[in-house]
Amino acid sequence: MSAPTSSASAQQPVAQAAQATQSQNIVDPEDLIRSDDPEHPANLIPELCRGFYKLGWVTGTGGGISIRRDDHVYLAPSGVQKERILPEHIFVLPFAQSSVPKPGSQRDFLRIPSKKGLKESACTPLFWNAFTMRNAGACIHTHSQHAVLLTLLLPRDAQSFQISHQEMIKGVRLGGNGSTLRFFDTLEVPIIENTADEEDLTEGMAEAMEKFPNAAAILVRRHGVYVWGNTWEQAKTQAECLDYLFEMACKMLQNKLPLVGDA
Amino acid sequence: MSAPTSSASAQQPVAQAAQATQSQNIVDPEDLIRSDDPEHPANLIPELCRGFYKLGWVTGTGGGISIRRDDHVYLAPSGVQKERILPEHIFVLPFAQSSVPKPGSQRDFLRIPSKKGLKESACTPLFWNAFTMRNAGACIHTHSQHAVLLTLLLPRDAQSFQISHQEMIKGVRLGGNGSTLRFFDTLEVPIIENTADEEDLTEGMAEAMEKFPNAAAILVRRHGVYVWGNTWEQAKTQAECLDYLFEMACKMLQNKLPLVGDA
Amino acid sequence: MSAPTSSASAQQPVAQAAQATQSQNIVDPEDLIRSDDPEHPANLIPELCRGFYKLGWVTGTGGGISIRRDDHVYLAPSGVQKERILPEHIFVLPFAQSSVPKPGSQRDFLRIPSKKGLKESACTPLFWNAFTMRNAGACIHTHSQHAVLLTLLLPRDAQSFQISHQEMIKGVRLGGNGSTLRFFDTLEVPIIENTADEEDLTEGMAEAMEKFPNAAAILVRRHGVYVWGNTWEQAKTQAECLDYLFEMACKMLQNKLPLVGDA
Amino acid sequence: MSAPTSSASAQQPVAQAAQATQSQNIVDPEDLIRSDDPEHPANLIPELCRGFYKLGWVTGTGGGISIRRDDHVYLAPSGVQKERILPEHIFVLPFAQSSVPKPGSQRDFLRIPSKKGLKESACTPLFWNAFTMRNAGACIHTHSQHAVLLTLLLPRDAQSFQISHQEMIKGVRLGGNGSTLRFFDTLEVPIIENTADEEDLTEGMAEAMEKFPNAAAILVRRHGVYVWGNTWEQAKTQAECLDYLFEMACKMLQNKLPLVGDA
Repeated sequence: MSAPTSSASAQQPVAQAAQATQSQNIVDPEDLIRSDDPEHPANLIPELCRGFYKLGWVTGTGGGISIRRDDHVYLAPSGVQKERILPEHIFVLPFAQSSVPKPGSQRDFLRIPSKKGLKESACTPLFWNAFTMRNAGACIHTHSQHAVLLTLLLPRDAQSFQISHQEMIKGVRLGGNGSTLRFFDTLEVPIIENTADEEDLTEGMAEAMEKFPNAAAILVRRHGVYVWGNTWEQAKTQAECLDYLFEMACKMLQNKLPLVGDA
Repeated sequence: MSAPTSSASAQQPVAQAAQATQSQNIVDPEDLIRSDDPEHPANLIPELCRGFYKLGWVTGTGGGISIRRDDHVYLAPSGVQKERILPEHIFVLPFAQSSVPKPGSQRDFLRIPSKKGLKESACTPLFWNAFTMRNAGACIHTHSQHAVLLTLLLPRDAQSFQISHQEMIKGVRLGGNGSTLRFFDTLEVPIIENTADEEDLTEGMAEAMEKFPNAAAILVRRHGVYVWGNTWEQAKTQAECLDYLFEMACKMLQNKLPLVGDA
Repeated sequence: MSAPTSSASAQQPVAQAAQATQSQNIVDPEDLIRSDDPEHPANLIPELCRGFYKLGWVTGTGGGISIRRDDHVYLAPSGVQKERILPEHIFVLPFAQSSVPKPGSQRDFLRIPSKKGLKESACTPLFWNAFTMRNAGACIHTHSQHAVLLTLLLPRDAQSFQISHQEMIKGVRLGGNGSTLRFFDTLEVPIIENTADEEDLTEGMAEAMEKFPNAAAILVRRHGVYVWGNTWEQAKTQAECLDYLFEMACKMLQNKLPLVGDA
Repeated sequence: MSAPTSSASAQQPVAQAAQATQSQNIVDPEDLIRSDDPEHPANLIPELCRGFYKLGWVTGTGGGISIRRDDHVYLAPSGVQKERILPEHIFVLPFAQSSVPKPGSQRDFLRIPSKKGLKESACTPLFWNAFTMRNAGACIHTHSQHAVLLTLLLPRDAQSFQISHQEMIKGVRLGGNGSTLRFFDTLEVPIIENTADEEDLTEGMAEAMEKFPNAAAILVRRHGVYVWGNTWEQAKTQAECLDYLFEMACKMLQNKLPLVGDA
């Protein structure tokens, strides 16, 4: 299994890089999340999460989005109301291909929100899969009911969701980062089993991403979906297209309509 | 039956405490609801109710939220449009373990909104159950259609709703105030029968809370749900997770999918 | 049939009253719709219609609300986007028990919006039924899909919709203006047949209101619902409770659950 | 087949007209999209698209609206998040009866957004069908799930969607630009097959518009709908009425209710 794992040897250079970055460029780590630019990740994440909340994707503190820019990864805290996040709550981690940060190992952080009791999203190693294996610029995780219901309506042993002949397929990219699919193509999204702890999904997600190199997302049975893209715009567009297709597929299955083909 | 009840002897100390508080600390009872802090209960309750309205939880003046902070309980008036409440409409009651305020008994109030014709929410004694029996910091009541439809789709004699193997279960706490449930755990929410008058639910809700000490909420058949938490944030998170599960369970029942297990 | 009708003799005093009001109290008819009070009908109607649009009640220019205050009736123009109405678009008519304004008969107006091409809502005589027969202070008309679908799911010859044992029934008043119903009561809303022109519903609505004196609303098959109340707050509360019950009833019928009783 | 096509000879006069307009009236092409008037097309299109996003019509960058005013056609870029468009992103094309602009042929543009990488909506030639064949002032394209599901629930060989006896039919105009339909009339919307590339729908849409001169819209199987009107207000009103009818028809079909007649 080739899922990236965090090990002492791998973390070493990351910690060094973080120190280097901090000493050379950053006087105050708070500068990492202070910006007047509404498209700065620390401003975007709160705004996007408010939109995701309205869509029913991140209620009950679930789900979220992580954005990678240059050598930094921005993400929300764990277990907080995603529609109420502020820029000052955003965590910033150094990005390195070779390591997945282990939740709670604080030395990997460039910035830890000063508000006590916060820890970074439990999805962190899963977001990392998208960053390292697909060179993604952003990864979105939702608990959308359409995604979850779809994993329940499909046969119990289904390894993936497949659909074709839908216009919205054209908004999804091969592998999440390549060229867009065509109307006649069959979109395929692997389904993995849920685990007790979110971080334990890391390996299963990585395996599915290897087995399905064309997949733009990973469905987690009875849980939700992970979607990524080259940029936050592409990740969001694909998350919307896929959620639309999940919802449409649920309706089609309930009406006994085949998902693949144009019969 | 051990549901807290209001009696002359129990109310005596409350009234005294209220007087003491008023004489010692508070010059103007209006100060209890005047604050620039957006997280002050008098500001939070109107804001949260606007959000609940958009979710369809409190339309037609139904439902609401009560927040307890220190020795004060804040709640909305009865029979008003919950999405239009202002801080000046908020009632403030003294909190005492030993008493449940009887709706309309005005001497228990630290603050009665000056606008004529308002009376405190009919849910007051039900909120009190959560405060006294689970030491809750907040309690939410919704008329969500998902909660009501679920009580209709389950067998007529079902004493509770049970579901397992759903990620959103992990947002719910044992007893509403303990540790969070795990993915494989079976969440159980008791269902009680509705009564003609809301305050007559008090005893039935208390009995169910005793019988189901791990329950984080009480469903009321053909009516709605009461959900509590240590803080307003936890109460809201659990209300969202439970509403998500109620909705998902309705869909699963309509598609003949079992609610418990992972078959 | 006792539906109020507009006749030359009945309109005479109205026109006179209007002239009297104008000469005595009003310098500029625009004053009728200029107010800093957000609860002035000319400000409320646009705001409420924006909310109704979000609920799906008034899309496609359908539906709306009319408010009666003192001797004036305020209503929106016909055929305009209800979520974009401004105070300056509001029509003001004199209210008189004995007359129903005939759409387009301009001498009955105290104020005609200066913007060319507007005419008052085609629902005007239907709103008048609520004002004259139930002394209503406001009347709401929606094209809610829940109302329309319910009229299609019920038997073709059903004269009314009945439901009992729902908490939300308690938000509805006997006759729309009396005491609130109780949980165990059976709520009944008559259903009338639609007509080619909206104003031709006037008589059928009046007949149903006479035949069902306890009804708080009139359903129009394949069209929508009219709901009224003593005040705009009560009309809105009842419209929300009824729409909730229409939606719940559709779900119950689709799940083969009986609407009346608690079996 | 008489669908308007772009040819070298037809484009010549357009290019000349554009040059003439530019030299005579316009100093800076940016003036075409700068206006304080909220109803200027460059301001309206972003605002309307935000509303369409909330309705689920344009998620995943799909769908949009084009407005024609005088000799100019305004439209959004292709492949961008429609709820985030700004006036500065709007394309402006010269309007000429005799030509359909070929996407990407830049000499036809009066204004090309300066932001790099944008190209005009792929729907451009389809919007043109509405402008040239029905003299429309605006055309809306949605990916509404109601439209798409309806094309799946109807028989595979259905050439059109038909419905009667619905109040909302009265908001739709004959041919999209004539008199409004009546309650008893049968509304008919042709359904065409989807194609791999959006612009390849141009001919099929034009054929259907010719074959169904009374149609106010064209459904595209497994894709969405195109709706037009004399003005943007009429196009939006008709898009809302039709979407309501598509949704209602889906529910009726799922409940085995006939779409035509009042049985």
